[in-house]
Amino acid sequence: MVVELILGSGLASLGAAAYFNMRVQAVSVESGAASPEESERLLKIAKAIRDGAMAFLFREYKTLAVFIVVFAAVIGFLIDDPSTPDVREGSYSAVAFIVGAITSILAGFIGMRTATAGNVRTAVSARESLEKGFVTAINAGAVMGFGLSGLAVLGMLACYLCLEKVLPGQSPHTIMEILSGFGLGGSSVALFARVGGGIYTKAADVGADLVGKVEAGIPEDDPRNPAVIADNVGDNVGDVAGMGADLFGSVAESTCAAMVIGAIAFHDNPAALLYPLAISCLGIPASFLGILAFKAKSEEQVQGALKNMLILATVLMAVMGYFLTVKLLPAEPFDLGLKTGPVTSTAVYLAFLSGLVSGYLIGWLTEYFTSHTYGPTREVAESSKTGTATNIIYGLALGYNSAVIPSLLIAATVIIAVSQAGMYGIALSAIGMLGTISVALTIDAYGPVADNAGGLAEMAHMGADIRRRTDVLDAAGNTTAAMGKGFAIGSAALTALALFSAYVTQCELTSIDLLDPWVMAGLMVGGALTCAFSAMTMRSVGLAALAMIEEVRRQFRTIPGLMEGTAEAEYAKCVDIATAASLREMLRPGLMVVFTPILVGWLFGEKMLAGVLIGALVTAVIFAISMANSGGSWDNAKKYIESGACGGRGTEAHKAAVVGDTVGDPFKDTSGPALNILIKLMAIISLVFAPFVHNMGGVIMKMFTH
Amino acid sequence: MVVELILGSGLASLGAAAYFNMRVQAVSVESGAASPEESERLLKIAKAIRDGAMAFLFREYKTLAVFIVVFAAVIGFLIDDPSTPDVREGSYSAVAFIVGAITSILAGFIGMRTATAGNVRTAVSARESLEKGFVTAINAGAVMGFGLSGLAVLGMLACYLCLEKVLPGQSPHTIMEILSGFGLGGSSVALFARVGGGIYTKAADVGADLVGKVEAGIPEDDPRNPAVIADNVGDNVGDVAGMGADLFGSVAESTCAAMVIGAIAFHDNPAALLYPLAISCLGIPASFLGILAFKAKSEEQVQGALKNMLILATVLMAVMGYFLTVKLLPAEPFDLGLKTGPVTSTAVYLAFLSGLVSGYLIGWLTEYFTSHTYGPTREVAESSKTGTATNIIYGLALGYNSAVIPSLLIAATVIIAVSQAGMYGIALSAIGMLGTISVALTIDAYGPVADNAGGLAEMAHMGADIRRRTDVLDAAGNTTAAMGKGFAIGSAALTALALFSAYVTQCELTSIDLLDPWVMAGLMVGGALTCAFSAMTMRSVGLAALAMIEEVRRQFRTIPGLMEGTAEAEYAKCVDIATAASLREMLRPGLMVVFTPILVGWLFGEKMLAGVLIGALVTAVIFAISMANSGGSWDNAKKYIESGACGGRGTEAHKAAVVGDTVGDPFKDTSGPALNILIKLMAIISLVFAPFVHNMGGVIMKMFTH
Repeated sequence: MVVELILGSGLASLGAAAYFNMRVQAVSVESGAASPEESERLLKIAKAIRDGAMAFLFREYKTLAVFIVVFAAVIGFLIDDPSTPDVREGSYSAVAFIVGAITSILAGFIGMRTATAGNVRTAVSARESLEKGFVTAINAGAVMGFGLSGLAVLGMLACYLCLEKVLPGQSPHTIMEILSGFGLGGSSVALFARVGGGIYTKAADVGADLVGKVEAGIPEDDPRNPAVIADNVGDNVGDVAGMGADLFGSVAESTCAAMVIGAIAFHDNPAALLYPLAISCLGIPASFLGILAFKAKSEEQVQGALKNMLILATVLMAVMGYFLTVKLLPAEPFDLGLKTGPVTSTAVYLAFLSGLVSGYLIGWLTEYFTSHTYGPTREVAESSKTGTATNIIYGLALGYNSAVIPSLLIAATVIIAVSQAGMYGIALSAIGMLGTISVALTIDAYGPVADNAGGLAEMAHMGADIRRRTDVLDAAGNTTAAMGKGFAIGSAALTALALFSAYVTQCELTSIDLLDPWVMAGLMVGGALTCAFSAMTMRSVGLAALAMIEEVRRQFRTIPGLMEGTAEAEYAKCVDIATAASLREMLRPGLMVVFTPILVGWLFGEKMLAGVLIGALVTAVIFAISMANSGGSWDNAKKYIESGACGGRGTEAHKAAVVGDTVGDPFKDTSGPALNILIKLMAIISLVFAPFVHNMGGVIMKMFTH
Repeated sequence: MVVELILGSGLASLGAAAYFNMRVQAVSVESGAASPEESERLLKIAKAIRDGAMAFLFREYKTLAVFIVVFAAVIGFLIDDPSTPDVREGSYSAVAFIVGAITSILAGFIGMRTATAGNVRTAVSARESLEKGFVTAINAGAVMGFGLSGLAVLGMLACYLCLEKVLPGQSPHTIMEILSGFGLGGSSVALFARVGGGIYTKAADVGADLVGKVEAGIPEDDPRNPAVIADNVGDNVGDVAGMGADLFGSVAESTCAAMVIGAIAFHDNPAALLYPLAISCLGIPASFLGILAFKAKSEEQVQGALKNMLILATVLMAVMGYFLTVKLLPAEPFDLGLKTGPVTSTAVYLAFLSGLVSGYLIGWLTEYFTSHTYGPTREVAESSKTGTATNIIYGLALGYNSAVIPSLLIAATVIIAVSQAGMYGIALSAIGMLGTISVALTIDAYGPVADNAGGLAEMAHMGADIRRRTDVLDAAGNTTAAMGKGFAIGSAALTALALFSAYVTQCELTSIDLLDPWVMAGLMVGGALTCAFSAMTMRSVGLAALAMIEEVRRQFRTIPGLMEGTAEAEYAKCVDIATAASLREMLRPGLMVVFTPILVGWLFGEKMLAGVLIGALVTAVIFAISMANSGGSWDNAKKYIESGACGGRGTEAHKAAVVGDTVGDPFKDTSGPALNILIKLMAIISLVFAPFVHNMGGVIMKMFTH
């Protein structure tokens, strides 16, 4: 029955995605545009953006393909659990890894196709009314939200069923161990999409702004700017493909972690075994109802509608989650191997609920710190009056401050989840936080669609009133994007903890003692990794932006008539350069993330690796949250001043705020979100390579201690 | 014999301080000045600076007195080890606490008196020759270096001997437990001197710069600027009193920690028991020889002379340390309670050496990242050419990057120290890193003396050639100040770890399991504390600077003839305001540091408190190093541009670099160094309150888990 439930939900989710896609495609650009010329202009620009996005994706896939093949070989070669001599885990894990990667790629591809079709349709819908524009953008986002959830659930289920078939008689534990390769595959795609995409989007943005706005003095989204298409492509690459792959990874990883941990307790109970996957499925109807329940008819309602969708989905999820948990888990208390004794299904539900609630609270706190309707960001805006330096200082201080309560919330979630249901509880809390992913991702992908629609309205000269409507849609998207980032970081932290728990279970570690110098040293090394990774990604943006700046300057210099609007810029060149530079610059941080856990485990042993994972986790959470919120706050402080506060545009305060916004760009869109990948990818690699590390690891440590 | 050795070294250290003080006082301002008028001007300004510094100190002492009395009462009330019913530890600890606080105050007071006498004498010595100026500044610094070491050593010895006398027959363990109150006293003073002083110095600096340089357009150190005296006072308050109290705390704490840990193993061996104190004493002759060995005869030699002093002292310390260790520790392997078996004296020496060496390397790395003779800071300077935003981004990235290797060095030190000699090894590695404190502090206090001398030369119109010489002396001081900061952070980290080890020993914890949710949550809470503390101190500087800015503006507005130089500014008002604002603004962060460990231990238990200490440690180390180095690099990138690179003064690059420098001010001089106090003070409070936490702690946790 549970298999049917999961299968049905996954298919329903894909059905929902198809439905929303149909509604997006039903909007006709030709008949919605004011004139055939406008329609032609719109379609031409939209095609350029779509072509650019696809160019990035296909180039990314090429690099990714090499990586997947090589890494699958490493997995196949290194992993073999000696306790099951009849099964060569590595080969199966490698296949699961490849399937996970392809599923994630597929989900990202679908999301990008619809987003780049939805942007132009949102623009023409906005001509009709604000509400129509809102609905089209939401529908485009929902394709990503539901497509991804459906593919994630179906992919994992398919892998599980195939493994059961080809490995008959093997314990669920072995099967789940292999299945975690699926999560690794998803996370590997996220490395490219989130880190590479993050570098791309900010290189294009900074390049377009610095040469276009500052040097040439032309407005944002002006078609004369050669980097304008790359900039619009970047919005999709970063916020659609990047965020999607990140959350796909989280869902796949936290579910795998829960099933690995639960495999021993529930080895003879398939319903309970697949419960983590089943409860993830609940988010699909909850999100569907949430999205359909709210519309924005006026400017004031846009932001409220987006938030209400999330609230309704959260509440539905909380209610339905209880009944499903009671239904699928054993009625009698069951043994999860905890010292505190058997666990009830209600306790597992509480762990799940703690994640769901704290995810919502973290999102809300992010809004509090980054929206200019509240005190903190207004203080940053005020501080701009005494100059750039104070704007930067206050923005950084706001970021640090904003990380305090989310860290405490995660701490509280850990205590509740573990005290209720041990390691299994941690994994369930991560699943709970990710429960509303379909709606969260819908809202998140809505942002770049609305943003792109604004760019299209500007570039195709659709007129000031349309641009105003798309601006309203975009502004609401900015706030929800900040919330989405908070949510992504929080869920990444819990996912990494869940993977850590599964890793510990796999290595059969009964304690990881802080008094062990290798563990303590591991914590310091983990902290160092967060620093190194942040420094690398920040410099990557700088270097990639430099390549863009040079190309834009070259075009302004060598293309006659470009500034006068009589000649066309070579947009594709800029797209190409941003693509190449971002993929090149992600190489070093990417290799560091992938090989550090394997090397540390091999050389210094499983306990030091555990320390490294936790050290990176603790530091990355505060780095990621503070970077995302500093960046979001600088962005909105600038917008607040542009709306007339603190003297408005053109004042020294505004100039200071613009600098803050530029500093915040790599913070909030590259380095901060990339840290999610750092902690999750290192944790899942540790989990997948646990048999290797457990049996062959610690060569230097052993020399040292004996 | 060992008592005599310690006593002799301590007295010799005070003798050295007196000798250096005599040499400073021997320089006559009257006969060294070019004219009686110049002499009068110099003495008048020097008196204003000294009066300002003393005003700050006395106001600080008043607040501190209240704190000491209240906190001594808390100690007396809460601490009582039930395993020794015949001794009320709290009362004795309270007395040790008060003695430690008073000793630290005394050391700081001596240092400040000499620094504020040395500044003007350095200025007139520099009139004679660069070498004379160098020697006078070094001598002034050395009074602080040797006075502090001597007082620290004698204070601890006196406490120990008194406790032995009044508690005859008690175990060394009980006596050392009480003695750790001495370290707590020293650290409490550091809270005020480092955090309050850090806020003071930057509020005065930013206030003087923003109104004087930017708004009124008058040069640095111009006597018309009402905040100029406060700014010069701030240099002494921050770098002499603040750094001194910080390092006094580290020495006292790491020695106490080592003796607490060693008390059980060496309960019947006074020589080995007092070995940690004795080996600290070795630094006194090593530093004395180092300082006397090198002079700077020309501009090129200044920086080299300072560095060579440190190198020679390090080498001497390494050699002498070996012989002392072999002499004092038992010749046969001894039992430190380690699972790995008995330990040899050579192993203890290796732990000591690892700290000594990694302290030197961390200092060197700091120089590499912050000096503009190397690549990293030059890259920050280059990045200023594309504007303020890139300058900030590159500076922040440099900071993160610079924290990587020091974290790895600390990790390596932990592994070496613990694998050689367990917890005792950690404490010895901290003592090793602090071994060269006399010379390190001499070099550090040399900086503000030379800086002040430059200010005096400017304000007293001594002429451009004298100013040039003081600038040379000052520039070398800036680099060594950066090294001193790296050293202070590294030693704070090891000291905090040593205190943590002693805390764990006191609570009789045999393991602190990362799989325990309370420990894991503690790590997250520790990370949150670092964030909260950083945010608070950064905002404190902003608020205190604002108070200064208003006062300076008021004086410019209301005092007729001030700008023309016919009327005198009310310097004392500015000093007053900075003093009051800094002490007010340090209240909240200070209370947080002091009460968090007690509250966490009481409510959530000793294991969560252990997690909090380590979480704060891991995050604070990378925050503190990256903040100090970002700030140092921005400062030197600006100086590099001012020396003619990247277009030189007046360009956009220079303006961008000035903004970076201002952002870096609270980073490197307030928030970064204040984090040293956060981790050390929380750790020593945990150690002193260990009996309370161990016996009465965890009230909420117990409700939760039962």
